[in-house]
Amino acid sequence: MYGVILAGGSGTRFWPLSREAYPKQLLKIFGNQSLIQATLSRITYLIPMKQLYILTNPLQAEQIKLQLDPKSMPCFISEPIGRNTAAAIGLAAIVLRKKFKDGVMAVLSADHYIRDINVFADTIRLGGTLAEKEYLVTLGAKPTRPETAYGYIKKGEPLQEGPAASVLHFIEKPAREVAEQLVKTDDIYWNAGIFIWKVSTILNEIERYFPQLSEGLLEIEPHIGGEHEEETLRKIYPQLPALSIDYAVLEKSKRLAIIPVDMGWEDVGSWNALDEVLPRDANGNILTGNVVSIDTRDSIVYAGKRLVAVVGLGQTVVVDTDDATLVCAKGAAQNVKKVVEVLKQQGNDAHLVHRTVVRAWGTYTVLEEGKEYKIKRIMVNPQSRLSLQSHKMRSEHWVVVSGTARVTCGESVYTISANQSTFVPMGVKHRLENPTDEPLQIIEVQNGNYLGEDDITRFDDDYGRITH
Amino acid sequence: MYGVILAGGSGTRFWPLSREAYPKQLLKIFGNQSLIQATLSRITYLIPMKQLYILTNPLQAEQIKLQLDPKSMPCFISEPIGRNTAAAIGLAAIVLRKKFKDGVMAVLSADHYIRDINVFADTIRLGGTLAEKEYLVTLGAKPTRPETAYGYIKKGEPLQEGPAASVLHFIEKPAREVAEQLVKTDDIYWNAGIFIWKVSTILNEIERYFPQLSEGLLEIEPHIGGEHEEETLRKIYPQLPALSIDYAVLEKSKRLAIIPVDMGWEDVGSWNALDEVLPRDANGNILTGNVVSIDTRDSIVYAGKRLVAVVGLGQTVVVDTDDATLVCAKGAAQNVKKVVEVLKQQGNDAHLVHRTVVRAWGTYTVLEEGKEYKIKRIMVNPQSRLSLQSHKMRSEHWVVVSGTARVTCGESVYTISANQSTFVPMGVKHRLENPTDEPLQIIEVQNGNYLGEDDITRFDDDYGRITH
Repeated sequence: MYGVILAGGSGTRFWPLSREAYPKQLLKIFGNQSLIQATLSRITYLIPMKQLYILTNPLQAEQIKLQLDPKSMPCFISEPIGRNTAAAIGLAAIVLRKKFKDGVMAVLSADHYIRDINVFADTIRLGGTLAEKEYLVTLGAKPTRPETAYGYIKKGEPLQEGPAASVLHFIEKPAREVAEQLVKTDDIYWNAGIFIWKVSTILNEIERYFPQLSEGLLEIEPHIGGEHEEETLRKIYPQLPALSIDYAVLEKSKRLAIIPVDMGWEDVGSWNALDEVLPRDANGNILTGNVVSIDTRDSIVYAGKRLVAVVGLGQTVVVDTDDATLVCAKGAAQNVKKVVEVLKQQGNDAHLVHRTVVRAWGTYTVLEEGKEYKIKRIMVNPQSRLSLQSHKMRSEHWVVVSGTARVTCGESVYTISANQSTFVPMGVKHRLENPTDEPLQIIEVQNGNYLGEDDITRFDDDYGRITH
Repeated sequence: MYGVILAGGSGTRFWPLSREAYPKQLLKIFGNQSLIQATLSRITYLIPMKQLYILTNPLQAEQIKLQLDPKSMPCFISEPIGRNTAAAIGLAAIVLRKKFKDGVMAVLSADHYIRDINVFADTIRLGGTLAEKEYLVTLGAKPTRPETAYGYIKKGEPLQEGPAASVLHFIEKPAREVAEQLVKTDDIYWNAGIFIWKVSTILNEIERYFPQLSEGLLEIEPHIGGEHEEETLRKIYPQLPALSIDYAVLEKSKRLAIIPVDMGWEDVGSWNALDEVLPRDANGNILTGNVVSIDTRDSIVYAGKRLVAVVGLGQTVVVDTDDATLVCAKGAAQNVKKVVEVLKQQGNDAHLVHRTVVRAWGTYTVLEEGKEYKIKRIMVNPQSRLSLQSHKMRSEHWVVVSGTARVTCGESVYTISANQSTFVPMGVKHRLENPTDEPLQIIEVQNGNYLGEDDITRFDDDYGRITH
């Protein structure tokens, strides 16, 4: 069996914790693991890492890799842009067909929460058995509340295999009153968006019900694994029709089977999902970080090091980050994405990326930007170094606050430690390096008329980012 | 006529914009002037600056002076601690008696908003005429809504002078239903807490109705203006009974007169006061600073440079500062003071002072504190300098980002400009000075095991803060 993890989400509904370059599957909102880390560890009970494929765009792939063990990585399939689930699943299927001819593929989302891993594993196994018999298998999660953000499925006649059944029909995200009826109705399940089928079955069904997509995929297939793969994808993939697999294929197919399952499934689609997953305190609150709460009930407050005080609130979500704060009525949590739309319209890029940016060599955080200066805290991982670089428009002062740095500045190479500083003049080739086994932390004060991140010429780089 | 401005407020209800060391009368929430600046400019239409007295504690006096023109300062009367309005007014009265024997005094609050300055001035003038006739005059503001945070006064028979009248009785802060009745009742006014009387009249009435206070004041009086004034105040003032002048004297006195007046008066007692004073937009919102508002109504959002996004809110107050954010239901605005109480219980001093601290020589802002380092942005006013000082436990790196600094470090004195840096080793006597007519801005990176503000030995200081 192969696993395909769809991880292309833009994360706009978890702003400001998620950002364009840091979508929600990278967030550790439910504990020590991010959603993508949890998704991978769940499925590796069943499928070895080398048979797992993560489908995402190149920028997010880079961020995901930083969260994984470099010694045990899944494969990555690069989507130039998002074209909804039918195209994504089709692309994964032709990659698998090209490499392995056929096989069973389990399609998972990077941002689901599943409480009961054993039930999940058993269900995927049963799905595999059904998939071998040419079924398109979908998992139906037992509804626990009248959720209006999920799709529903009506179960039909039982099949021979375990609790599996045929599917009568799909119900799109319902209105509140409809959802309240559905949750009381027999044989109704949430559409969990987890699928199991053979590569050949799904590609045949795509050909039958969505020939326009099938044609595009066939154009791409010969180039998979070849030298023109990336170029072909960049050319053809964006032209593929963007429909969901449910709408384009599953709702029409005669081969559909549902496995009803009660495994504590949640699609982590908005801040409200925390209510379903995390424990609430005696006042119905979920409070994280530096929070003072007075007379507040049924609210979610997600703070960091800064202080958030809430007084007399109810049914409210407050999310605080270094550079931006969200305050949202729970009933309006789906509209958080509108904030991101407004920021894009305003060209307000500052709040579309995090203040702390994760790089392969460590992280940097912009502490303050002012007229002709910018202050960064830079953390360099042990035995790592930034590129050999220069800047046309700025000079840099570095003060080491912990650890030891090896500095290249022009022709000189020297070492500075905590409480020592150095100066990199404008235009001079330089490199910052941590040659030790402890993290290195420096404060950088940049001076210049132009302080954009794009004023950088790279001469040598451990991560292949040479611009010279 | 003399003016006495009570300015001892702790500002807990305007947290996090107000802090212990920076109470609300210093805030510029209604425009270019702070509340204390506006109070002073209103009354200087009638009373020259040298006849004005500000009664406050020494810490706040220092902050207030920084907002005033050093060439035209009022007098300051120092309260060692707050003992409510009867003691404060009594202290001001004995200061005036000691200096001038007698005279009319107008008692004002530092944190009132008054829209119509001409009506205010006319009313104070009329109050002066009544005060000469031994009345204790209080202003009654025309109620515009069933406010539960204000006290009310029932007007009695008209007096000979203009609209002035006798007072039937006082009504404490009423419950909602009572307030709704009051606002519909004739001859009912808000107790504006603005008083005009002769020094001799109020001291006689204090003697008659509150002899315990009177005795304490008589003990203090001989030392006013003498070398033991501060010492005597520190000893006796904290022992004075703490009651409001309304409760202790006015409600009992037979000399009371009320002048009803419609001058757009507001006691700026909580964030809700902004609704009464500032214009609202089409959605009933008051939005200040970097705010993105989606589907939000009847709310107050006070942001700075950081971004605050609000989604689907109603009747909510959001106040964002560098280090802390408040989110409060409008109906609970009076409970913001509970946040400050909790912070004090927690010993959470960091959020009881502002990240930017105002000093006589300029300001400093803590940008970040970490293990063994602290980063500050320091602004030095033109032609100003910090003390000649040393630190036992830390060294300092200074990077000039704008302007020019004269640096004393050990035996050396030198000048550095934008893009230059210098290092002050631990224990070395140093001084930072701005010898130019432009502001000086530096970034300071401190290193050391202990980075408290109290690790400072001052050898020479332009502001008399020598610790050596």
